[in-house]
Amino acid sequence: MAVQSLTLDVRGMSCSHCVNAIERALKEIGGVKSVDVDLKGGKVTVSYNDVELDKVKHAIEDAGYEVV
Amino acid sequence: MAVQSLTLDVRGMSCSHCVNAIERALKEIGGVKSVDVDLKGGKVTVSYNDVELDKVKHAIEDAGYEVV
Repeated sequence: MAVQSLTLDVRGMSCSHCVNAIERALKEIGGVKSVDVDLKGGKVTVSYNDVELDKVKHAIEDAGYEVV
Repeated sequence: MAVQSLTLDVRGMSCSHCVNAIERALKEIGGVKSVDVDLKGGKVTVSYNDVELDKVKHAIEDAGYEVV
């Protein structure tokens, strides 16, 4: 399974309550693996299962090439 | 719609026939937007719709924050 990790800029987070709210909201999504909130920097890093990337890799492999 | 762009290392590409085969295989996938094959470097760059990233963004927004 392809796991994708991305950092998003998020506005409106001001305290630990916000951090908890973001973490709770994201962990409710099935494909989300981990959440890291940087309150000071206004950034949320999330890793999640990327189904489309899986399809891309399988298409390349099915065509006879190797994704390394 | 969140569009994701990624470069993969791919082994086994040796000629323009390979480039065409890779491009054809990837363009058959519904969510794939563009494909760029670097034959010499052994790299394939693909941009595609990332449904899971969309869910992540919507969850943050639904919790009352803004993804910028």
